[in-house]
Amino acid sequence: MKAVVTVMLKDGVLDPQGRAIGHALTNLGFAGVGEVRAGKVIEITLDETDPAAARATAEAMAAKLLANPVIESFAVEIKP
Amino acid sequence: MKAVVTVMLKDGVLDPQGRAIGHALTNLGFAGVGEVRAGKVIEITLDETDPAAARATAEAMAAKLLANPVIESFAVEIKP
Repeated sequence: MKAVVTVMLKDGVLDPQGRAIGHALTNLGFAGVGEVRAGKVIEITLDETDPAAARATAEAMAAKLLANPVIESFAVEIKP
Repeated sequence: MKAVVTVMLKDGVLDPQGRAIGHALTNLGFAGVGEVRAGKVIEITLDETDPAAARATAEAMAAKLLANPVIESFAVEIKP
C-alpha cells in the first residue's frame, strides 16, 4: 500500500514560505491571490496490505517523525 | 476557491530527502518501509469563483513558479 502524509502548518501559525509564494505570484501578474499556505507531502510505500493497519502505521510515522505536533497538523491518505 | 498544488519529483529523479526520511523511519523501528518520496503542497486561496478558470490559473502558477518542469511534476486539485 501507499500512504500519502500531508503536513501543513496549523491555522494561526505564521507561514513565511507561503507568504513569499503569494507575493511572488502577485508580482508575476496573477490577480486575486489570497492566502497561500505551504506544506509537505510524503509518499511512503509500505509492505503492509491491510488499509487500516497501513493507516495506523502512517499516523504513527507522522506523529513520531514527519510532523511537529506543536505547529503542524497532518492528514493521511491510503492508496492501494 | 481554493487550489491545492502538489509538486513531486519526477520518477527516476533521485530524492535524497525522501531517502533520508525512509532511513529515519526504519531506524525508528518501522518495518516494511519501501520507497519514500518527499514533495511540496501549496494551498492557494483564489478570488476566482469558476472551478475551470481556477484550475487554469493554478496550473499556470505551477508551471511558472511552483514547480521546476525539468525535474518536477505537479497535480492541481480545486476545492470550493
